[in-house]
Amino acid sequence: MRNDCLFCAIADGEIPAFKLYEDEMYLAYLDINPFSYGHTLVIPKAHYENLDSIDENALKDLIVRVKKIASHISSVLSAKGYNILQNNGEAAGQTGKHIHFHIIPRCEGDKIAFENTPGDMEKLKALAERLKM
Amino acid sequence: MRNDCLFCAIADGEIPAFKLYEDEMYLAYLDINPFSYGHTLVIPKAHYENLDSIDENALKDLIVRVKKIASHISSVLSAKGYNILQNNGEAAGQTGKHIHFHIIPRCEGDKIAFENTPGDMEKLKALAERLKM
Repeated sequence: MRNDCLFCAIADGEIPAFKLYEDEMYLAYLDINPFSYGHTLVIPKAHYENLDSIDENALKDLIVRVKKIASHISSVLSAKGYNILQNNGEAAGQTGKHIHFHIIPRCEGDKIAFENTPGDMEKLKALAERLKM
Repeated sequence: MRNDCLFCAIADGEIPAFKLYEDEMYLAYLDINPFSYGHTLVIPKAHYENLDSIDENALKDLIVRVKKIASHISSVLSAKGYNILQNNGEAAGQTGKHIHFHIIPRCEGDKIAFENTPGDMEKLKALAERLKM
């Protein structure tokens, strides 16, 4: 755990989050500034800055969770598709230096701009209950 | 191999591509309508439509290649960052029903729109030589 890392603080339970999935090593929770309805982040609890620095075995375990969680969210929301996005470096839009995969559910013709929009906390809470695995 | 799949035809060598990396099971090549300079696609040679349908072991092997190839491209191009993008379903912008991961190198303030722009074939050929692993 890094003291200055928001993602580590969420993984450690110091900062609350709308969790959908958790095991000993990985965690998924709703982005509170979602690109789309159901926008979720999947992280390893251990601190790795980005794709360059993550351990290969941790990456393999992480992507398998991304797959399972994305399929689940897509199914529950009857999404028409979804994007998996993982940003490396500020120039690529990485906010927070702790690797995270975005799951971005999509609707037909939604034309989302991959931009953060402040979410409604009550609605996010209810959505997290619906999507909990 | 699927007869109606462009990605299978590229994997099989029937359709040429600016290849950067190839092994028995996986292939990486330049997108000829790149979002950014060095935009690369990484695919399994076996046909899986999307993240929902790919075999877990194939996915693990694929993401490890994505990591290695992205680090290599980023380093050779001295990129300031890169995005990993994987689209599922037409509503999410998936073109071609064969799973592929995009590696999108980024420069500071480039403001790319994640839109295809026709590439110059001579320049792509030279770039592929530079990025070949």
